[in-house]
Amino acid sequence: MIYLDNAATSLQKPKEVEEAVIRAFHTMGNPGRGAHEATLQAGRCVYQVREQLAELFHAEKGERIAFTSNATEALNTAIFGLFHKGDHVITTVCEHNSVLRPLYRLQEEGVEVSFLSADENGVLEYEKLPELVRENTKGIVITHASNLTGNITDLERIREVTESRDLLLVVDGSQTAGILPVDVQKQGIDIFCFTGHKGLLGPQGTGGLYVRPGVEICPLKVGGSGIHSFDREHPKAMPEHLEAGTMNVHGIAGLGGALDYLKKKGTKEILQRERQLLRRLEEQIREIPGIRLYGDPDGNRRVGILSFNIGEEDSAYVADWLYEEHGIAVRAGAHCAPLMHQTLGTKEQGAVRISVSHWNTEKEVDRTAEALWELSEI
Amino acid sequence: MIYLDNAATSLQKPKEVEEAVIRAFHTMGNPGRGAHEATLQAGRCVYQVREQLAELFHAEKGERIAFTSNATEALNTAIFGLFHKGDHVITTVCEHNSVLRPLYRLQEEGVEVSFLSADENGVLEYEKLPELVRENTKGIVITHASNLTGNITDLERIREVTESRDLLLVVDGSQTAGILPVDVQKQGIDIFCFTGHKGLLGPQGTGGLYVRPGVEICPLKVGGSGIHSFDREHPKAMPEHLEAGTMNVHGIAGLGGALDYLKKKGTKEILQRERQLLRRLEEQIREIPGIRLYGDPDGNRRVGILSFNIGEEDSAYVADWLYEEHGIAVRAGAHCAPLMHQTLGTKEQGAVRISVSHWNTEKEVDRTAEALWELSEI
Repeated sequence: MIYLDNAATSLQKPKEVEEAVIRAFHTMGNPGRGAHEATLQAGRCVYQVREQLAELFHAEKGERIAFTSNATEALNTAIFGLFHKGDHVITTVCEHNSVLRPLYRLQEEGVEVSFLSADENGVLEYEKLPELVRENTKGIVITHASNLTGNITDLERIREVTESRDLLLVVDGSQTAGILPVDVQKQGIDIFCFTGHKGLLGPQGTGGLYVRPGVEICPLKVGGSGIHSFDREHPKAMPEHLEAGTMNVHGIAGLGGALDYLKKKGTKEILQRERQLLRRLEEQIREIPGIRLYGDPDGNRRVGILSFNIGEEDSAYVADWLYEEHGIAVRAGAHCAPLMHQTLGTKEQGAVRISVSHWNTEKEVDRTAEALWELSEI
Repeated sequence: MIYLDNAATSLQKPKEVEEAVIRAFHTMGNPGRGAHEATLQAGRCVYQVREQLAELFHAEKGERIAFTSNATEALNTAIFGLFHKGDHVITTVCEHNSVLRPLYRLQEEGVEVSFLSADENGVLEYEKLPELVRENTKGIVITHASNLTGNITDLERIREVTESRDLLLVVDGSQTAGILPVDVQKQGIDIFCFTGHKGLLGPQGTGGLYVRPGVEICPLKVGGSGIHSFDREHPKAMPEHLEAGTMNVHGIAGLGGALDYLKKKGTKEILQRERQLLRRLEEQIREIPGIRLYGDPDGNRRVGILSFNIGEEDSAYVADWLYEEHGIAVRAGAHCAPLMHQTLGTKEQGAVRISVSHWNTEKEVDRTAEALWELSEI
């Protein structure tokens, strides 16, 4: 199989992930619950991975990172925990349902929501952002890169608005954590939501959110915390504030292994490699008759994603054909990004999405290009 | 280390767990997102583990089981999703903070909550339950076994009330899933919440809830579902209704391995073995001067937990001493069960909790008893 579906999940993991998970299975208990070696091992592991994430995202301290089971939980925690009846929130048409559906639910509870539009390439129309701001606008929830087009959001331009109007900036880093440089302090990011199993190359069931000091989030879940058991309320201090119940220490350990690998390998080098592979692919397929490539034409403004359609062919047919005829695994359909498809005019057809890993080879890319030419000539 | 903290998390896992997790790392993508082998493998795995859980708990169908990251998330999902302003809920003083804290939060939002009391052994005073029922009572949230005393709730007596008054029965199976027989249909359980990493012997980061057909829960989290991407609402059908974002397939695969082991080994045999070990321990320590054993004196009415204090000694001191002098890992303190401590009169002292696994040996139990005698004679 040629696996080109890394935006859904990274299939190949660094060997450090498996090693760390197995070590955790053999040594780690329940962190923060008791004082024997198994629980201390678990506690140290969780602490260390928080520190690794804080370093990667340039957070003030490890304690500003709370773990969740995926980016969706991080986004639900942020969105439901920050915005309430009477608030106005701005988001964009590039968002995934993990942003849209929580906001739609809040709309029913009296939160106002506005959408920043995008052009025919799915590039945000930044110049329209200031006019969306209202007196009761509390924040902007925005993807760092579209999971459909791969377009990278120019956070600098968003920040101009959030800082001048004193708005919260909530960033969905599902497609960028471990891929693009993130400096939450320099970039003025108040909340950064991420998943562990995509660009961070860790296990599924991991993820989290960075919360800037001073930003208060009402927790989504409350319960056992291992501390302050006699309080009626869940602990107020981060990170316990946003974590409840037994953590996924086995998964978090694996994420730590992945972060070790990323640090050694260099995320910059990984992104360069992915762009090089995509450029090679794009050059070979751009002349296919009837092909429509989506996203910013400048590949340096995209993460390692290339989405397209061939003529009026249903995207699912193209993906199935690629897999069945050539063992090439890509993804088709709506990609949980309904407003993006409305913008691109692909609501019915969906889109074929190719998303590479730095482990993919030139040969795999070339075979994919050849297969697409073959399909176009059938 | 002699590990006697299995009620916090099972440290030793069946080899099937590790094998299944590694297999998942090498073969499984994101389930329900795409149609290539990696995604289908993941989808089949998740489907199969749902079926295994449905079989274990005698659910109508696998689709009635939704996965969560732990029991706390399952309980938050049930409690916040079922009860709303104006409702009355009955719970008990035996509950863990994962039940109490969500209910305290609901109290602030206008939900009424009553607490069924327990006697000096922590045994529920079942006869007082009917008088707690009000006109607006919607359900009972109750632990299947106390995490502090190990006392097993007589669900038959609870059911008499829930069925005659048409109340929802929500059961916290954190200490019983994989240990006690559960037949949600015969036992009249509407929601059964469980964790994967304790009695089920699976990885951390796994758990879930059974939901009886016809019971509607408003989901705690909404977002990407892999299906119905153009709907503004999260899918209505179980299990997708209560699951959002990428699942912890690596962990779920491991849980499947654990369930294979449990089926082969037999949960009945496991419980017998645990009770045998605890009986052996209890017989050796009951004459220690000043020891106070908590919980039902009949060990057959407890899961594999034995909690105690020695004189006025702080429980944390006893636990630390056991670990530092003899490498015996137990747990002390409040165990996130504040009302239970109030009932037992151990709010200040906490309690020492020993919780065995069927892998513990007679020798380990005997050494623990000797150590406790030694401590009592210092």
